[in-house]
Amino acid sequence: MQLLWLSLLPCLYLASLCSAEQGLEFPSFDGKDRVLHINERNYKKALKRFDMLCLLYHEPQPAHKGRQKQLQMTELVLELTAQVLEDKDIGFGMVDSQKDAKVAKKLGLEEEGSLYIFKDDRVIEFDGEFSADTLVEFLLDVLEDPVELISNPMELRAFERMEEDIRLIGYFKGEDSYYKAFQEASERFQPYIKFFATFDKTAKHLSLKMNEVNFYEPFMEEPAILPGRQLSEMEIVEFVHQHKRATLRKLRAEDMFETWEDNLDGIHIVAFAEEEDPDGYEFLEILKDVARDNTNNPELSIVWIDPDDFPLLTTYWEKTFKVNLFKPQIGVVNVTDADSVWLDMSNDEDLPTAEELEDWIEDVLSGKVNTEDDDDVKDDYDGTRLCCLDSINT
Amino acid sequence: MQLLWLSLLPCLYLASLCSAEQGLEFPSFDGKDRVLHINERNYKKALKRFDMLCLLYHEPQPAHKGRQKQLQMTELVLELTAQVLEDKDIGFGMVDSQKDAKVAKKLGLEEEGSLYIFKDDRVIEFDGEFSADTLVEFLLDVLEDPVELISNPMELRAFERMEEDIRLIGYFKGEDSYYKAFQEASERFQPYIKFFATFDKTAKHLSLKMNEVNFYEPFMEEPAILPGRQLSEMEIVEFVHQHKRATLRKLRAEDMFETWEDNLDGIHIVAFAEEEDPDGYEFLEILKDVARDNTNNPELSIVWIDPDDFPLLTTYWEKTFKVNLFKPQIGVVNVTDADSVWLDMSNDEDLPTAEELEDWIEDVLSGKVNTEDDDDVKDDYDGTRLCCLDSINT
Repeated sequence: MQLLWLSLLPCLYLASLCSAEQGLEFPSFDGKDRVLHINERNYKKALKRFDMLCLLYHEPQPAHKGRQKQLQMTELVLELTAQVLEDKDIGFGMVDSQKDAKVAKKLGLEEEGSLYIFKDDRVIEFDGEFSADTLVEFLLDVLEDPVELISNPMELRAFERMEEDIRLIGYFKGEDSYYKAFQEASERFQPYIKFFATFDKTAKHLSLKMNEVNFYEPFMEEPAILPGRQLSEMEIVEFVHQHKRATLRKLRAEDMFETWEDNLDGIHIVAFAEEEDPDGYEFLEILKDVARDNTNNPELSIVWIDPDDFPLLTTYWEKTFKVNLFKPQIGVVNVTDADSVWLDMSNDEDLPTAEELEDWIEDVLSGKVNTEDDDDVKDDYDGTRLCCLDSINT
Repeated sequence: MQLLWLSLLPCLYLASLCSAEQGLEFPSFDGKDRVLHINERNYKKALKRFDMLCLLYHEPQPAHKGRQKQLQMTELVLELTAQVLEDKDIGFGMVDSQKDAKVAKKLGLEEEGSLYIFKDDRVIEFDGEFSADTLVEFLLDVLEDPVELISNPMELRAFERMEEDIRLIGYFKGEDSYYKAFQEASERFQPYIKFFATFDKTAKHLSLKMNEVNFYEPFMEEPAILPGRQLSEMEIVEFVHQHKRATLRKLRAEDMFETWEDNLDGIHIVAFAEEEDPDGYEFLEILKDVARDNTNNPELSIVWIDPDDFPLLTTYWEKTFKVNLFKPQIGVVNVTDADSVWLDMSNDEDLPTAEELEDWIEDVLSGKVNTEDDDDVKDDYDGTRLCCLDSINT
C-alpha cells in the first residue's frame, strides 16, 4: 500500500460529519498495512497462521492508469475489510496472476478478480460486489456454523420464512449420527446455501423421516426429498448440485457475478420488482406462481432483481435497458452485450396475469421473443442531458 | 473538487475486476464536477434550476488534516451520487457553515453534517449513513409519489407485510376529496413515513370508514385511528407527530443518526437480533410481544438493530459494547459515552421469556439497571491482538 493512499484516504465510509452522540462510529481506514503480498516464500506460513485466509487473485499490475487505480482501490477495500475484522483471526492477501503464477497454481486460483477464502481444508470463492460492506458480511457468515439447529416452532417459522434462499433441512438422531455427513456437505456450500438440522419433534411439522434431507428451491413450497437412509457426504453434495439452479432466483450482492455468469445460452430472463412496493410485490407473487408451475423446466431460470438492493446500479440499468424501474419489468437480457427486450406493461392499471406471463416466457424460450429482432428500429436514446452547472457555479 | 482526487479515485465502488459479461457495471466516478459550491450569488438560481436540490451543510474547512480529507471524501460521495442520478434533474451543492452563513440562515440549514433536500416548497433533512448507496436509494425514494394507492387484495398484503415501517392508510372518495389534505400531509414526512390510500372496497378489509386515517406503529397489529371526518392537513400532521416515536423501531441507514439523537434521557434500550437467524428471529418475536404489551408507555422505545444491515459496524459494536453479535443481545446504551450494560443471556439454550424481558425493562426504566453501576468492576478489554503480519510479509 503506497504511502500516498494512507494519507489521502482516512476513511472510505463516513459517519455523520458532526455528532455529539456515541455508538454509531463508522470505521475509517487507519492506514496500517494488513493485506499481505503473497508469494512462494510466505504462502504456507500465511495458511498456517490464520483460521481463515482470504486471497484476492488479481490481474498483473496494469499499464493503463485507470486500471492501476482500480486495483489500488480494490486493495484498499481489502485493507478496510481486514481492519474491520482484525479481531477475527482472518488473514488477507493479494496474489498477482503473473508474478505469482506458481503459487496461484498450487493454491488452485483460477478466476482473476475473485477472492478465494481458505478455511480448514476447503476453498470458498467469492465472486460478488467488491465493497467492504458486502465482503465483511460475507466473511462473518463464513465464520458462523455451517449448520443451524432448529429446535422449536418459532425457529421453524424463521426457517419457513427464508423463501428467497436455497436451503436444506435434515432430521437426525443427534450430533453423533448421519448428521456428520450432512455437516460435512454443508461446509462445501457455506455460506451460499443454507443448511439446517433438527434432532427433535420439530421434524414432525415438516413431515421429515429420520435421516431424511429436504431441499427447498427458492420460492417453492414443496421440497425435493432425499429419502432417509445411510447418507454419505457425497450423496448430499450430488443432490444439491442436481437441484441448485433455481427456477426463480434473487440476485444477491455476495454472488451476483457468479449468478450472471450462470446464464442459459448467453441470456437471462430478468425481472425487476421492488418487494417493498405494492405493485412490485404483486408482480413478484405472479412471478412466483409462474415459477412454481414451471419448476421442472430445466431451461427456465428467472433472475429477480430488487432495485432496492442495488441503488448504484438502478440508473445504470434504466439507461442500459431503457426501462423505468419505478415500475416492475420483465425482459430478456443478452449478457454478452447487454442488449435487451422487455415485455410491454405500459398499461398502468393491470399487471400481466400468470397465464400471460407464461405465454411470454414460452415465446422467449422458443426464440420468438429475442433481443435481436428489434435492433433495426431501436431509438437513439443516449441518456445525456444538457448540463448548465457551469453557469450556476459562477 | 481537487484535481488530485479526480485522478486518484476513478471509482469508489468496484465491479468484478474481470468479467466477460455485461449488465452489472458499477459506476466509477468519471471526474466531472457536478457538485456546486453554493453562495449568495448562485443559490436562488440553483433552487430554480432543479426539480430537487440537495445541499450538504458542512463545517468550515478544518485545520486538521484528517478532518480535511474526511470533508473531501464527503464531497466525493456527493459527486458520485450526483453522477449516478444525473438524469433525474437533481442538483447538488455544498454550503460552508462559516463562509456561507448568510445563505444557510436564509435556507434554514441548522445541523452541520446534514443534507437538506429542497423539493417544491418543502425541505427534507437527511441524517443517515453518508454513503453513495444509502443516499441514492433515499433520493430515489423522494422522487416517488408520496402516497401509494392500494387497489387490490394483493397490494393490501404488501401493505400489511411492511411491519417495520411507520405507515398510514386513508380511505377516500377519490383524488378530489379529503385525500388532498392527506397527500399534502404525506409530503411532510416523505420518505421516512409511508402513506397509502385506497379509493375502493379494499378499505373494507381494513374496516376503514370513509375519510378515516389509520396510523400503524411498527410491529403493532392495531392501528391508532383518526376518525373519518373533514380532515385538514394540519390535523393529520399533528396526529403523526403524536404517534411517531415507536415502542420498537428498527435502526435504518437512512435516518440512523436522527434515531440515535432521539434518545430518552441520554439512553437507548438497544436490541441486536439477526432476523435471518433462527435465534434472532425468535428473540425478535419475543421483543415484539413485549412492545405490543407496552405500546402505551411513552417512556419506552427500544431500538432494534439487525447486524446484517450494518456489516461495517458489527465488530465496532462488539468491541465497544463487549458483546457477541452472533447471538441476540439486549442492553442499555448511554449515548454520550457509549457505556453500556447487557442482559445476561449466556445460557445458550433458552432465550428470556416475554415476562423476564419485561421485568428487565422495568428495572431499566426505574434505574435499577443502569450503565454506571458496573463501572468499577469493568475489565480491561481493549480489543487489540498481537499482530505478526510483518514476520509473514517478508
